[in-house]
Amino acid sequence: MPIEVIAFDADDTLWVNEPYFQETERRFCELLEDYLPQHTVSRELLQTEIANLRLYGFGVKSFMLSMIETAIQVSEGTLGIRVIEKIIQEGKSMLDHPIELLDGVETLLEQLKGHYRLVVATKGDLLDQERKLKKSGLEHFFHHIEIMSDKQEADYEKLIRHLDIQPDQFLMIGNSLKSDVLPVLNIGGHGCHVPYHTTWEHEKIDFHLEHPNFRAVETIAEVSAFLLPRIEPA
Amino acid sequence: MPIEVIAFDADDTLWVNEPYFQETERRFCELLEDYLPQHTVSRELLQTEIANLRLYGFGVKSFMLSMIETAIQVSEGTLGIRVIEKIIQEGKSMLDHPIELLDGVETLLEQLKGHYRLVVATKGDLLDQERKLKKSGLEHFFHHIEIMSDKQEADYEKLIRHLDIQPDQFLMIGNSLKSDVLPVLNIGGHGCHVPYHTTWEHEKIDFHLEHPNFRAVETIAEVSAFLLPRIEPA
Repeated sequence: MPIEVIAFDADDTLWVNEPYFQETERRFCELLEDYLPQHTVSRELLQTEIANLRLYGFGVKSFMLSMIETAIQVSEGTLGIRVIEKIIQEGKSMLDHPIELLDGVETLLEQLKGHYRLVVATKGDLLDQERKLKKSGLEHFFHHIEIMSDKQEADYEKLIRHLDIQPDQFLMIGNSLKSDVLPVLNIGGHGCHVPYHTTWEHEKIDFHLEHPNFRAVETIAEVSAFLLPRIEPA
Repeated sequence: MPIEVIAFDADDTLWVNEPYFQETERRFCELLEDYLPQHTVSRELLQTEIANLRLYGFGVKSFMLSMIETAIQVSEGTLGIRVIEKIIQEGKSMLDHPIELLDGVETLLEQLKGHYRLVVATKGDLLDQERKLKKSGLEHFFHHIEIMSDKQEADYEKLIRHLDIQPDQFLMIGNSLKSDVLPVLNIGGHGCHVPYHTTWEHEKIDFHLEHPNFRAVETIAEVSAFLLPRIEPA
């Protein structure tokens, strides 16, 4: 059946996200360089984040709590309290950051609008993602925003049932093969990978992918090339 | 039109929640009593929580971050780092707490099942609320769980559109007049208030309510009395 619903990942697919995390992490590691070399702090932080994923999930607040926990560990409890204050300030300014759209996103959405049901399907914090969508000015393009607690096969199955379509009517576009593409292909949907220059360590996956329902593009603008022929046949 | 969808608030309507916050807050205030009297710390915490609502939203992680911020403020930066560690532990054990169902909930859901579309409509953190619903053993009763970033009129309007029903086909049941009842009545839905013995300060509202679409009950078991006659007429 033809594609009916196109779901977009949000962070680093529609707008810039990961660089803010990396920028904050860089300053965090600097704050703690009296205790440990920056790359060691960075590794410790990643371990704390992964250990906390089950309890905290994704998003800025989880990141803040993991930075605080890592700072205490790294300093073996000798940390000055002002460092904690600094981490909280960093987190708050991440939450308040203006949205920077990625190139080509708005044009593509304008082209697809009216031809497909467009949704946002993203992990992270509901309040934070809703705020970002509002600030992005893209809200009117989307039927709704789906905040997923995870992006595994069962989560996509739930989303597709919820959208009241068959898996092969669903296309997911995103920058993560692991989260946005592979689970969708595995349940019979379509996946399109748009690379982003920085991807969170935990999301990285080495994979050469060939699949009838899979498309790889270099930039999001190329997506229209395989979706628009349906609308305007030559 | 007859009621088609019944939405339940989750925390302190289906299961115990607020007492865990209050218990944690009590221990938090004890931790800081060297700096300020417990009731002053409690007031400071409430102020911090309200100031952070816009950025953080609801839920345990927000509560953890507000406790950390309050502890630093109250101690004027002289706090020992172990107190921060203790706050993080407290928050993690809140997130890992077993679910304690409120009396009558399971029986009521069993009675309503198959006669209405049942949903959970709750504020808070997606991951946290999904986990609680799973742990509660109630998941199979519900069509889906709707995590709302807020519970204002516009949020309920969105939910009702999403459910594809008219406002007068919607009944919301919850322990907060302010969040679960008033906004729903204002947009033409039905509301039912089930009191809970502790309600968060910020949610308290003094109100004598008379409205054709409003019902007040003392316990959730009484809900069946006005919903079941439709199913089994005398």
